[in-house]
Amino acid sequence: MLSLIFVKMFLPLLLNLVMSFGAYYFTLRIIPRLKDMFLKANLFGIDLNKQTKDKVPEALGVVTGSIFLVTLFLFIPLPFSHSLFTNNDFPHDELVKLMAALLSICCMLLLGFADDVLDLRWRHKLLLPTVASLPLLMVYYVTYNATTIIVPKPMRAWLGFSLNLGPLYYIYMGMLAVFCTNAINILAGVNGLEVGQSVVIASSIALFNIIELSGALWQAHVFSLYFLFPYIATSLGLLKYNWYPSRVFVGDTFCYFSGMTFAVVGILGHFSKTMLLFFIPQVFNFIYSVPQLFHLVPCPRHRMPRLNLATNKLEPSVTLFKQSDLKKPMLFALRFLGKLGLVRWRDTVTPHPDSCGRGDPDDRMVECNNLTLINLVLILFGPMNEAKLTTVLITIQVICSLLAFAIRYPLASLFYDVPGMQSK
Amino acid sequence: MLSLIFVKMFLPLLLNLVMSFGAYYFTLRIIPRLKDMFLKANLFGIDLNKQTKDKVPEALGVVTGSIFLVTLFLFIPLPFSHSLFTNNDFPHDELVKLMAALLSICCMLLLGFADDVLDLRWRHKLLLPTVASLPLLMVYYVTYNATTIIVPKPMRAWLGFSLNLGPLYYIYMGMLAVFCTNAINILAGVNGLEVGQSVVIASSIALFNIIELSGALWQAHVFSLYFLFPYIATSLGLLKYNWYPSRVFVGDTFCYFSGMTFAVVGILGHFSKTMLLFFIPQVFNFIYSVPQLFHLVPCPRHRMPRLNLATNKLEPSVTLFKQSDLKKPMLFALRFLGKLGLVRWRDTVTPHPDSCGRGDPDDRMVECNNLTLINLVLILFGPMNEAKLTTVLITIQVICSLLAFAIRYPLASLFYDVPGMQSK
Repeated sequence: MLSLIFVKMFLPLLLNLVMSFGAYYFTLRIIPRLKDMFLKANLFGIDLNKQTKDKVPEALGVVTGSIFLVTLFLFIPLPFSHSLFTNNDFPHDELVKLMAALLSICCMLLLGFADDVLDLRWRHKLLLPTVASLPLLMVYYVTYNATTIIVPKPMRAWLGFSLNLGPLYYIYMGMLAVFCTNAINILAGVNGLEVGQSVVIASSIALFNIIELSGALWQAHVFSLYFLFPYIATSLGLLKYNWYPSRVFVGDTFCYFSGMTFAVVGILGHFSKTMLLFFIPQVFNFIYSVPQLFHLVPCPRHRMPRLNLATNKLEPSVTLFKQSDLKKPMLFALRFLGKLGLVRWRDTVTPHPDSCGRGDPDDRMVECNNLTLINLVLILFGPMNEAKLTTVLITIQVICSLLAFAIRYPLASLFYDVPGMQSK
Repeated sequence: MLSLIFVKMFLPLLLNLVMSFGAYYFTLRIIPRLKDMFLKANLFGIDLNKQTKDKVPEALGVVTGSIFLVTLFLFIPLPFSHSLFTNNDFPHDELVKLMAALLSICCMLLLGFADDVLDLRWRHKLLLPTVASLPLLMVYYVTYNATTIIVPKPMRAWLGFSLNLGPLYYIYMGMLAVFCTNAINILAGVNGLEVGQSVVIASSIALFNIIELSGALWQAHVFSLYFLFPYIATSLGLLKYNWYPSRVFVGDTFCYFSGMTFAVVGILGHFSKTMLLFFIPQVFNFIYSVPQLFHLVPCPRHRMPRLNLATNKLEPSVTLFKQSDLKKPMLFALRFLGKLGLVRWRDTVTPHPDSCGRGDPDDRMVECNNLTLINLVLILFGPMNEAKLTTVLITIQVICSLLAFAIRYPLASLFYDVPGMQSK
């Protein structure tokens, strides 16, 4: 019995880990060789926060994504070796989960790369992850179809002990894929941040999975680790070249690929709510960005910090607009946040040319920092150079992960009866 | 019972057909809208056989491939509706086949598009389809694992009635994916040919599937049709814009995508040998091309016919080299083919500059047509304009399909006991 668990659980995980090391070294070797291919294909960006204006190869996420896929393609038979060589009933339901997961990730990688090459429109960015997650939802339906959640203690008086969300749960899971892909995509703009935060999130989920290996649902957590080890390995390889000063950019491809990988393990590992706990900085950044994302506050094309050439430090970037462009409640909210120090807001920078100096307050030009977590960090801690900024942001991500573990384990008992089982 | 077969077989097929019509019209509408996106992304080619040198958007296969994938993603639940709403045992083995098939196709679409954008090397073109077919082979192993073939009557004296090929059969299937993707890719170079031949092949396989629906293995043939209807629909949409004069090019993406779709239905539909019968022109073109593909005869970058500007007709393109560059057996073989009229071969076009008119026969420059079926057609039927050339080539494809049906049905009884069952 013990040897069967070893063959079914630890051996495949161990082999997966070995293959992930291989994938890491392969990533390190192949990226420098492929750089010219990307430049020749006109896939490059100019790093706006550097003094030099060199062409930096873009969308290298497609390389790590492909290595990830190939690693998992080669890995597929291993967890089934026991069933393959004995004549037991083959666990088709396990294999179908693996296939659907890879299909959704592969589809997202294709769409991400298409986006980097073709520059798709915003509505595609919301629609495509939804479509790509369809196979996932289908497999969730036929393998689990568990749409009942346990209601937290304080709300049980109103809602009862458990609540069957039914189709709403599927809508939630579909939106999870959209959220994960875009949340990473909008917390970006300084060297190494996309990959850095993704590695922290992936490592946090992996740690959570390892803790849960001793639980009753260990199979779901082993499944998640199959994906996370190669993901972390290939991303670390990419990080080496994407860290300040970036020699390659990762592209939307990487954000799409990462977001879908997280959605896949969260949904099929059946811990999608816990997983969202590891996205605290992304959720904060999303909420903070809402006024600009929905164009309640004017949103320039790039919201990344700007380089002060004299000090070589990054400063918050700003958006400049007429005060009368804002709706009253938005104006009030921003001024309030300004008082709290969460927004840098400057009135009457220059009188608006139309106002001829009459000083009509509604015609005043105002300046407000672009509403991103990155700019907020620069407001709170002052200008700093790019490498330090990325380090601070990744440290915040790590602290939030610790907070997530604190919420998930000790605090969960306040809301649920038995911590570690029902709140998934 | 009859109503169950209707629900399980005809209803999904009918819905698939309806969705394929939708995919066709969507393809027609979306391609013109996306053309500029491709031009802006530097994804274009110049049509060498036109008087004008306009930029033609390239790699539009990624669009039809994506529409194909989305159609099938939406279709996935339908064949399972019976099991989804009753509480029967869910057929995970059926779903896993569908997922693996889509995974291989999606992976190939990604690699094809990466090839069009990044211009991958030749060794990748052979390696990548092999990797992409791994999920397919895994699923074949766990669902069929039938590696025994029935030996044709004339060879039974030596080999026995049946032969278990074991791992060799998997190598054969892996190579099938490589062959299908590349065979279409090298029979290309005139407007509409890649898509045209693919539509004829797909329609032939579909017809074969429909004939076999009355047989014992109908489920495998229904499975194949699920893929072929949307494939034919999206490809016909693409053909409208790719036909002479091409307003879009399809790119390697399309050839990879098509080849993998054929390999998928052949392998999982369990009729891979019959399927190869529909590739007669491609097999001929491949064998005819071997001397140039393996560089036994010098091979220029493009082997497509060249336009005679005066007549506006295409003529066979040629390769020019020193007679001494060829190995003796190759020289003999080409001269022999020349006598048969299958190669246009010209000696001593001009004396080689080094030979100073001494006329050493080994230093003579010789001229030989590029060894493709397209050039051979021009040699046999004389120069013609591009639209007519494509029509002739597609007619040849149709005639070969009729020949394939003749081999598969009436003639099969000469080689096998019961036609229509064992020779798959």
